[in-house]
Amino acid sequence: MTATDSLLGRFFCEPVIAGLLDERARLQGMLDFEAALARAQARCGVIPQAAAGPIGAACDATGFDIGELAAATALAGNPVIPLVKQLTAKVGDIDAKAARWVHWGATSQDAIDTGTMLQMRAVLDVLSPRVDALCDRLAQLARDERGTGLPGRTLLQQAVPVTFGLKAAGWLDALLRVRGKLRQARGESVVLQFGGAAGTLASLQDRGLDVAQALSAELALSLPALPWHAARDRIVELGSAFALLTGVLGKLARDIVLLMQSEVAEAFEPSGTGKGGSSAMPHKRNPVGCVAAIAAATRAPGLVSTLYAAMVQEHERAVGAWHAEWDVLPELARLAAGSLAQMHVVVEGLELDRERMREHLGSHGGLLYAEAVTVTLAAHIGKRDAHALVEAASKQSLAQSRRLLDVLLEQPRVREHLGVDELQALFAPGSWCGMADAWIDRVLRSHVAGTAKT
Amino acid sequence: MTATDSLLGRFFCEPVIAGLLDERARLQGMLDFEAALARAQARCGVIPQAAAGPIGAACDATGFDIGELAAATALAGNPVIPLVKQLTAKVGDIDAKAARWVHWGATSQDAIDTGTMLQMRAVLDVLSPRVDALCDRLAQLARDERGTGLPGRTLLQQAVPVTFGLKAAGWLDALLRVRGKLRQARGESVVLQFGGAAGTLASLQDRGLDVAQALSAELALSLPALPWHAARDRIVELGSAFALLTGVLGKLARDIVLLMQSEVAEAFEPSGTGKGGSSAMPHKRNPVGCVAAIAAATRAPGLVSTLYAAMVQEHERAVGAWHAEWDVLPELARLAAGSLAQMHVVVEGLELDRERMREHLGSHGGLLYAEAVTVTLAAHIGKRDAHALVEAASKQSLAQSRRLLDVLLEQPRVREHLGVDELQALFAPGSWCGMADAWIDRVLRSHVAGTAKT
Amino acid sequence: MTATDSLLGRFFCEPVIAGLLDERARLQGMLDFEAALARAQARCGVIPQAAAGPIGAACDATGFDIGELAAATALAGNPVIPLVKQLTAKVGDIDAKAARWVHWGATSQDAIDTGTMLQMRAVLDVLSPRVDALCDRLAQLARDERGTGLPGRTLLQQAVPVTFGLKAAGWLDALLRVRGKLRQARGESVVLQFGGAAGTLASLQDRGLDVAQALSAELALSLPALPWHAARDRIVELGSAFALLTGVLGKLARDIVLLMQSEVAEAFEPSGTGKGGSSAMPHKRNPVGCVAAIAAATRAPGLVSTLYAAMVQEHERAVGAWHAEWDVLPELARLAAGSLAQMHVVVEGLELDRERMREHLGSHGGLLYAEAVTVTLAAHIGKRDAHALVEAASKQSLAQSRRLLDVLLEQPRVREHLGVDELQALFAPGSWCGMADAWIDRVLRSHVAGTAKT
Amino acid sequence: MTATDSLLGRFFCEPVIAGLLDERARLQGMLDFEAALARAQARCGVIPQAAAGPIGAACDATGFDIGELAAATALAGNPVIPLVKQLTAKVGDIDAKAARWVHWGATSQDAIDTGTMLQMRAVLDVLSPRVDALCDRLAQLARDERGTGLPGRTLLQQAVPVTFGLKAAGWLDALLRVRGKLRQARGESVVLQFGGAAGTLASLQDRGLDVAQALSAELALSLPALPWHAARDRIVELGSAFALLTGVLGKLARDIVLLMQSEVAEAFEPSGTGKGGSSAMPHKRNPVGCVAAIAAATRAPGLVSTLYAAMVQEHERAVGAWHAEWDVLPELARLAAGSLAQMHVVVEGLELDRERMREHLGSHGGLLYAEAVTVTLAAHIGKRDAHALVEAASKQSLAQSRRLLDVLLEQPRVREHLGVDELQALFAPGSWCGMADAWIDRVLRSHVAGTAKT
Repeated sequence: MTATDSLLGRFFCEPVIAGLLDERARLQGMLDFEAALARAQARCGVIPQAAAGPIGAACDATGFDIGELAAATALAGNPVIPLVKQLTAKVGDIDAKAARWVHWGATSQDAIDTGTMLQMRAVLDVLSPRVDALCDRLAQLARDERGTGLPGRTLLQQAVPVTFGLKAAGWLDALLRVRGKLRQARGESVVLQFGGAAGTLASLQDRGLDVAQALSAELALSLPALPWHAARDRIVELGSAFALLTGVLGKLARDIVLLMQSEVAEAFEPSGTGKGGSSAMPHKRNPVGCVAAIAAATRAPGLVSTLYAAMVQEHERAVGAWHAEWDVLPELARLAAGSLAQMHVVVEGLELDRERMREHLGSHGGLLYAEAVTVTLAAHIGKRDAHALVEAASKQSLAQSRRLLDVLLEQPRVREHLGVDELQALFAPGSWCGMADAWIDRVLRSHVAGTAKT
Repeated sequence: MTATDSLLGRFFCEPVIAGLLDERARLQGMLDFEAALARAQARCGVIPQAAAGPIGAACDATGFDIGELAAATALAGNPVIPLVKQLTAKVGDIDAKAARWVHWGATSQDAIDTGTMLQMRAVLDVLSPRVDALCDRLAQLARDERGTGLPGRTLLQQAVPVTFGLKAAGWLDALLRVRGKLRQARGESVVLQFGGAAGTLASLQDRGLDVAQALSAELALSLPALPWHAARDRIVELGSAFALLTGVLGKLARDIVLLMQSEVAEAFEPSGTGKGGSSAMPHKRNPVGCVAAIAAATRAPGLVSTLYAAMVQEHERAVGAWHAEWDVLPELARLAAGSLAQMHVVVEGLELDRERMREHLGSHGGLLYAEAVTVTLAAHIGKRDAHALVEAASKQSLAQSRRLLDVLLEQPRVREHLGVDELQALFAPGSWCGMADAWIDRVLRSHVAGTAKT
Repeated sequence: MTATDSLLGRFFCEPVIAGLLDERARLQGMLDFEAALARAQARCGVIPQAAAGPIGAACDATGFDIGELAAATALAGNPVIPLVKQLTAKVGDIDAKAARWVHWGATSQDAIDTGTMLQMRAVLDVLSPRVDALCDRLAQLARDERGTGLPGRTLLQQAVPVTFGLKAAGWLDALLRVRGKLRQARGESVVLQFGGAAGTLASLQDRGLDVAQALSAELALSLPALPWHAARDRIVELGSAFALLTGVLGKLARDIVLLMQSEVAEAFEPSGTGKGGSSAMPHKRNPVGCVAAIAAATRAPGLVSTLYAAMVQEHERAVGAWHAEWDVLPELARLAAGSLAQMHVVVEGLELDRERMREHLGSHGGLLYAEAVTVTLAAHIGKRDAHALVEAASKQSLAQSRRLLDVLLEQPRVREHLGVDELQALFAPGSWCGMADAWIDRVLRSHVAGTAKT
Repeated sequence: MTATDSLLGRFFCEPVIAGLLDERARLQGMLDFEAALARAQARCGVIPQAAAGPIGAACDATGFDIGELAAATALAGNPVIPLVKQLTAKVGDIDAKAARWVHWGATSQDAIDTGTMLQMRAVLDVLSPRVDALCDRLAQLARDERGTGLPGRTLLQQAVPVTFGLKAAGWLDALLRVRGKLRQARGESVVLQFGGAAGTLASLQDRGLDVAQALSAELALSLPALPWHAARDRIVELGSAFALLTGVLGKLARDIVLLMQSEVAEAFEPSGTGKGGSSAMPHKRNPVGCVAAIAAATRAPGLVSTLYAAMVQEHERAVGAWHAEWDVLPELARLAAGSLAQMHVVVEGLELDRERMREHLGSHGGLLYAEAVTVTLAAHIGKRDAHALVEAASKQSLAQSRRLLDVLLEQPRVREHLGVDELQALFAPGSWCGMADAWIDRVLRSHVAGTAKT
């Protein structure tokens, strides 16, 4: 449970999105469907003009007793059956005749799925500028830190130099793709559900399509080719977009917690009062935001797998698989939104220790430049020999705690081909960053292009 | 979110378990740890005798502001840091000196993990008699319906006869194993967590073990060999027991929804006012309890996979994986308990149409007895020939809509070896159930043995 | 293990795709990268023109000892390290000088990821016309069977009438969306991987981008904005497309096994020699193709969750998560392709019992038309009253095994508003299918549009 | 695919276990069932005495054509149907009469499930001493390194001191529990499957139980209370035991890769020729064994979730869910065994840099002892004040790059209560390890007890 009024709700989610996904909002989503249905049907002449007003007036979630609905839901098998009962009574209080036309021609799943889609649209619309803002911040980091060298690390071993700008560009590049995915889900997967008992809208006789189109217009939700009560790929695509966002942020968070280790200490989450302390250790500065993002990324795969599993539904309406989605899709949205909120704060206030990064470039005897030596030497003595020679020299450097440069300077076969200056230049901080700048520029261009497209 | 005050909470869970797992109960679990810690330390002379009383008095969850704790948790990274702050203030209001000794020597994870264990114990203790009751009911069905024949179905095709008692015995047998698993989890996986900052209890200097033992006694929680902040197999075992229960009940529910299909109609969930109706179709009788159980069984695998994934934790305390468990383990407990409650009602009130089962034994031209004929014939003409002959006869029977018996009576090679009476006897309803009764007896014996062991 | 030479390989996959994903093909993918790299670098003048030929000549997987590579891989941590060693030796046998330039400037992951992408492209290109063919067949079913009525079933209960054409249109509609997803993955997620040790291509000094562009052209693989060694959303998107295909086919298969039940018997997988028999029961006709598709759909969610989980990778190259993808992505492709092959056969040879479908429309006392009566009546007496009246009549009809029509004809409140003819017309087979035809037309139009787009 | 003849098979598995799980072994498992069945039935007089010999003689997997079986399996839906056909022919070549009695009274699933159980038993019996050996080695590390201090790390931040012996004891403690789980799975979940077409053994008429008991004795597999064709919790328990092993080893591997980081460098996987090199960087020493273990731990959760999902099976035999287990359970076994083999090598040859660990105890200005100071001070000035004072001093120490000790010595409020010597003693390396030794002893005792129990 990650509503904001739960102990952990604000750690894993954040208030605005939590509000869009809470129980009251879920109820309102269904009621918005009912109100729009009445308006659409009145417009089409399927129900009396006078019925739409009273029905719409009663469709306000604040007036409903969630506890009572919950108890009835356990028996009825879905919340719409008791909801329609309560709603009909409320409409009846306003206008007895209008009460006849509540939920006309619809089935429970129409209200639940459409309500969910309305919630998803609202969530995506709130997330969109937040993702943009994080992209902008990462773009700025990519630009600003293109000259900030630090060790590239592969399999958690120092490998060859990179720049912090390049790291930021890598994070941004992935986030840009997820942004595209979120936009696509917003554009293609958020649609109306309206099919009646088994998808034929038979109860509306020959007016089904007219009402569906009017309802689609009322709610500004696309009308799909046909109802999708038991075809759930759109739900998977939505959940999948949230899981991808969570995954991309999880990778960013993992990088930062690794950089923030006591022994690395190259980058830090911002600190602040009440932030990341320890109940036992006064000196601790815990990477709280990243922890939340990693936890979310640990939870999302299991949740999204449930949505894939739930695709196998029976005939016109499923016996359990549909119900399995009800809590899972919103939970994925909450986790994605929570992770985004936490990582926004982390990236916004990210503290870099550029000095220490630079020190690390030269630490460990300069082994980070072993590839540079190998490549340069390989042009003279072939790759295999160069690799073997530098591998041996690296081991000697480690064993004797000497600089690799010094070990190499003693090797006749090295000196035969490379002068002292040439060799020293290979170990210069800031060297051996290859295409880092070119990659950064390419990503920044695609950021600008993607932003323009909005 | 499946608390009871949520729209779907009572569909997926039930009030007692939901209450044991709600936010207030989570908080109380941590506070019970803090109170017991103070008592244990007072007993060991680690803190003043006078401190335990005021601390214990303040450890009442109803006095805490969950919203405020939640907001602070998002910053602090876990709820214990702000909780200890509030608790210290409350104790201070009672006795300023005692306030010094709140949470003495403990770390946040000690309180959270132990609190979780206290909740799990309470949950398991409530579930235990409920599982027993379902076992008893299934045992009764196995006993009572051992003479109720119906088609056995493999790959959803009618295969050979079975009895409803045998089906019930199969459900019971699996549930008995899960009961064993739940008891084992209760006995072995529910333990104290107490290790201080990094598991050494260093802040208690040489009194760590004494306090740990006293605390273990206070809470009646086993003392593990050593703290397990980053070794989470016990959490997996608990979650796994819940997922297994959900899976076994999901299989039972799947069988019942299949039997309840309009075209099969051999068994039914009990009906009742407000139960399983449809908002669109007045004649519908939906298998609501089974739907909830199947939905739970669809959700549990993804959740339990998260617990397995979260086992890979870093050093003395994890950076995200531990946090991923917080909502997932209780959710598994809720789903298991909800599924059990729903299936209890289903099985308790299960309606059987024994007449229709019997009709089905003879439907489809008696193909259900094809194996009986094959085996009987095989003793004379070999298995391969018998199989081929009966396969051809079965196809003829289907194609011509005739009884298999009649088709066989025309076959000279059949008549050569089997008389008319012998052949007719093979198609007698109630025949060809093999070891069904022996299996039922074996399961009932293990039920009695397992129940005695409690 | 689902290679074609495995016992289960052809059940879960099919030979062409299995061949594209087997060990030799995996190896060839890496070797294609190495050969193209040499050509690209020769073109750019980074390595001697003369080196590309011998390197290309040696890049033939049939010459490599997989067992030896496998043994070395276990030590080296990936297959490229020993592969490059063997390749260098082979090139050396042809031309000692060329051997120097093998794998120049690349890192193991460049070869592995690009090799995977080449395999994925080949797989998607084989799948594409197969998905089209299944779409075409489903479109034909939708068109041809628009007049074939059968009971719509919700929660596995007969609900209201639908047509088989509508069911086919629903399957098609979902498959069309998955087709779009597969095309998009082919267009956007299949890209070159080329970054060298830590993504900077530093070992190519200032020629990195030139070589990358030339290599991209050589392999006809898009050049991404920057290397993506630790940014794995493209892998997730590919796996996700396969999982979605598996899910959509799983739903189709589930529907068919349910229709094929002995008690329903409305539709059947094609039968044939050696197909779907039983070792024990000669009369059985098992839904083998659907079983394979459902099994695939049961396995895909866990596999795809692994890809999501593996997104959280460390720095420039991951310590385990990348390696977790190696077998999982191809397995998803195999399962999707296998499911597609099996379901193609199923749908191609699908046998319908239209007579029986029609019978089922009128079975159970015509309860399928309860909604029709309710709606018609509701226009006169309001929805609530109509619902209650028809609910009671339905129960009476079931209890007394009488036709709902007959029960209704006795109700004064019904007769007051509806004439006998009017009432009888509501129960006419073929009636009450609402927008079924309109939906079919909408889906067929989007099929035509999507096909034109190819 | 992770057979040993695959490129990655030896990385993810190891030859002995891979051999026990390959296609030939799978086939042999089924054939062992068939041979034992014939012996048991001959013993019971159900088939002629003379039939058992020829059947047994033909049950040798080396004589079967796997390719042909595979092709037939895709049509038949399981491998036993074509296998029985080939087997019957082979027996017929030896003794035409005996051929009649092949697979008598059994169903395909009996052979497949029992074959799987025989493979699982073999796997568990090979794993058992290997797990013991790793336990022994970890116990030795726990004993030997109890005096080796290093920083405890929580949330990847240095926290308080621990010892390497304590870390080893923690790994051992979890592994001991998994060992218990593996033993339990071996004892309780490895059982015979024998039920015939729908679990009743009807085709054996009144001899079903006798044959089942004889077969159980022949194969030395426990006879379950009743057949379990559609009750799969035993399969889950087996897969779950493998997944737990993978998880525990994944945690161990994660710790080691973190310790092996260039910036930490406290412990190392053993190196060796061809081990953990890089194709690009000659100085690299990659944690290859740990990488394999982490990859396995990343893959296991998705696989095990499939087994939980597959519990929901239909009636007497499932339509897809059973088939979903076929490749998944062996894959879990392979991953667990591979991870164990890799981690055995890692732990066996683990290299510790005790000097560097000791250095790290005092690095970062001695912040590791902040808790020690806080606790000592808290006895005088209360916990809250002590925490605040040391938190401020820690920040000052970090900001000014001074030793925490020196900063504290300047604080009047500290000096008021603690003398210089007392304060210095708090920072002594080796101090502040609390109960580390007591915990180690407790774990070693449970190791001894658990080993005795074997």
